[in-house]
Amino acid sequence: MTKINENFLKLQAGYLFPEIGRRVRAFCEVNPEAKIIRLGIGDVTEPLVPAVIEAMHKAVDEMSQKETFKGYDDGGVGYEFLREAIVENDFKSRGVDIGIDEVIISDGAKCDTGNMQEVFGLDNVVAVADPVYPVYVDTNVMAGRGGEADGQGRYGKIVYMPCTAENNFVPELPDKAVDLIYLCYPNNPTGAVATAEQLGKWVDYAHEHKAIILFDAAYEAFIGEAGIPHSIYQIDGAREVAIEFRSFSKSAGFTGVRCGYTVVPKGLTAYTKDGETIEVGSVWRRRQCTKFNGVSYITQAGAAATYTKAGKGQCRAIIDIYMANAKLIRESLAKLGYQVYGGINAPYIWLKTPKGIGSWEFFDLLLENANVVGTPGCGFGAAGEGYFRLTAFGDTANVKEALERIAKI
Amino acid sequence: MTKINENFLKLQAGYLFPEIGRRVRAFCEVNPEAKIIRLGIGDVTEPLVPAVIEAMHKAVDEMSQKETFKGYDDGGVGYEFLREAIVENDFKSRGVDIGIDEVIISDGAKCDTGNMQEVFGLDNVVAVADPVYPVYVDTNVMAGRGGEADGQGRYGKIVYMPCTAENNFVPELPDKAVDLIYLCYPNNPTGAVATAEQLGKWVDYAHEHKAIILFDAAYEAFIGEAGIPHSIYQIDGAREVAIEFRSFSKSAGFTGVRCGYTVVPKGLTAYTKDGETIEVGSVWRRRQCTKFNGVSYITQAGAAATYTKAGKGQCRAIIDIYMANAKLIRESLAKLGYQVYGGINAPYIWLKTPKGIGSWEFFDLLLENANVVGTPGCGFGAAGEGYFRLTAFGDTANVKEALERIAKI
Repeated sequence: MTKINENFLKLQAGYLFPEIGRRVRAFCEVNPEAKIIRLGIGDVTEPLVPAVIEAMHKAVDEMSQKETFKGYDDGGVGYEFLREAIVENDFKSRGVDIGIDEVIISDGAKCDTGNMQEVFGLDNVVAVADPVYPVYVDTNVMAGRGGEADGQGRYGKIVYMPCTAENNFVPELPDKAVDLIYLCYPNNPTGAVATAEQLGKWVDYAHEHKAIILFDAAYEAFIGEAGIPHSIYQIDGAREVAIEFRSFSKSAGFTGVRCGYTVVPKGLTAYTKDGETIEVGSVWRRRQCTKFNGVSYITQAGAAATYTKAGKGQCRAIIDIYMANAKLIRESLAKLGYQVYGGINAPYIWLKTPKGIGSWEFFDLLLENANVVGTPGCGFGAAGEGYFRLTAFGDTANVKEALERIAKI
Repeated sequence: MTKINENFLKLQAGYLFPEIGRRVRAFCEVNPEAKIIRLGIGDVTEPLVPAVIEAMHKAVDEMSQKETFKGYDDGGVGYEFLREAIVENDFKSRGVDIGIDEVIISDGAKCDTGNMQEVFGLDNVVAVADPVYPVYVDTNVMAGRGGEADGQGRYGKIVYMPCTAENNFVPELPDKAVDLIYLCYPNNPTGAVATAEQLGKWVDYAHEHKAIILFDAAYEAFIGEAGIPHSIYQIDGAREVAIEFRSFSKSAGFTGVRCGYTVVPKGLTAYTKDGETIEVGSVWRRRQCTKFNGVSYITQAGAAATYTKAGKGQCRAIIDIYMANAKLIRESLAKLGYQVYGGINAPYIWLKTPKGIGSWEFFDLLLENANVVGTPGCGFGAAGEGYFRLTAFGDTANVKEALERIAKI
């Protein structure tokens, strides 16, 4: 008799974004004339930039000729031309020394942040911020590291680290020992950033407790202020204790193309029960070459084009559009009296719902009265209740209209 | 202290193909002048067909314009246009009724056959053919369903079903109850096929034992003889007990593009410990929407083009090239006195090593004396020792030269 993985049955809700999709579809069925503006799911709206398009056309043509056709990406870790561009532009340029064999290309940061937990034992204690990107929690619950959920949807075996306006949405160090720590800066969903000093405390904690930090830097391209770390490896000692995840989804509009990468530095180790040290990078590579078969050559060629001079400028221009949207949302809502956070170094605006109404209540209110879709803060964790996330990835004209509609309600 | 997943340490060897790559690289370093012919890893050599190239160029152009740009593939299950083409061409055309919501698109059959085990409990007994595609075994070992390995690399908790010339490489039903059964027909690595009658016995077994068959049909496009099932759903009763995996890798040369799909029929259930039935399809979708974010729109557009009239003809022509290679390898080796199997309904030729020498010994012999790379049968399991796999995916001129070189040794 085939037994199901009962950990899946412990999940508290459908994955957040499909649930939003279901509510919007239900509303649209009853109100087919409504012109919905989506500032919810965090999907981008600007097209791929010309440098990427050109590189992809060229790659497609290469795939059409026997001499230049590419089959399996040997080892499934990504082409050297892309890993070299990454090392040069994302790390060396910031004074960070990462080797190309420490970079593993994937089809997105969601997959990598979701899959990385597999290489660690089930008895590790996982710590997450609250609110948090649901993938970190749900994938650990599926594996069996969650335990049972309480009435607020918090899992008994997971350590939640509240992020509030009081701590600038950067959590305090936990008061009990934890093993795997998920951090995301610039943060989804709060839009907060962490300073070098704050990250330094986490790196010290990880050294002290032989813990590992899983650092999601998917939004680093949106950092506008000087002095904010773009990579955790800008912090001394991080190489030995941190894995970093990056994505082309938001920085280059690759949500529908799928490319990201993960850095697992050499010398980063976890332990067997007998205390033997094991290189995490080699286990991750073993996982990837067994369960994954690399990223489309066409996609990798496109990703590499974002690092050319033309590509960089074009991607920057699109980020500027989104960050202008962020400024507009932030300032308009503040004028309306909303308490708003984020939107300066991140494409997310985190707002307190008015009069303390619930997150889903505010979601329905905005959907029904302004036909605007956002994301309920409670979807990111219990501490997100009473908050709401708007993204800056909408079309600027739509963002303006959405803000006008919100002003009227 | 972060604990590693010690199940990874139980894996008996590096994943097979990287190990082959390492040996070939080592040989080439010492013999830089050697002209290596690769008939090993099963990678294709013919380029993408014109219909696919055209569709991909069009898709790239769509991604360049705001009006036609595609972001996240909603729900990550694949675009309807592709799922409709699949249902129509791969199933309805064979009298099989599969709904488009039972088809879930992915970045390849390797990923899906590797990931599917996650939705099932760790206490299921897994049965695999021996020899077998290593992904089925290794992913279960990583999850903890393998147990300890013996001296031949067989894991104690896995039930191995020997496939030999005597049973035409279609295993007997196991004499103990098993829960998850991996079957692959046309078979990798032996090139064998299963008849409807043989598959029917497995479907009956699964019904009787409430087991689930994980049916890998990645090579169905290579079936040349009439009457051989292309899908397990051509067998009565299979819908309730079988999941089917398909791939564009070999049928359309997508090894470097990455697209496949999985069919999880509605009504296919597994059980909780309390005996409650759970729809496997909904758990698989929950897994995919949490850990995966869909396949590149450009890739999906290319995959759909393989189902157009032009695309079908062009892909067929390439399959014919590979199957002509298969015939050539099969007949040439038979003339040389080798005992050969497969190569009629599958792109793999499975040969007995001469004079009973070991698989890796034959690998080295072929590499050193003929500069031809094949795959050692023992890499697919203990029962593959003394066998060797050659693939038909090489360039025809190279295949001919490889056979001439083999004839000389």
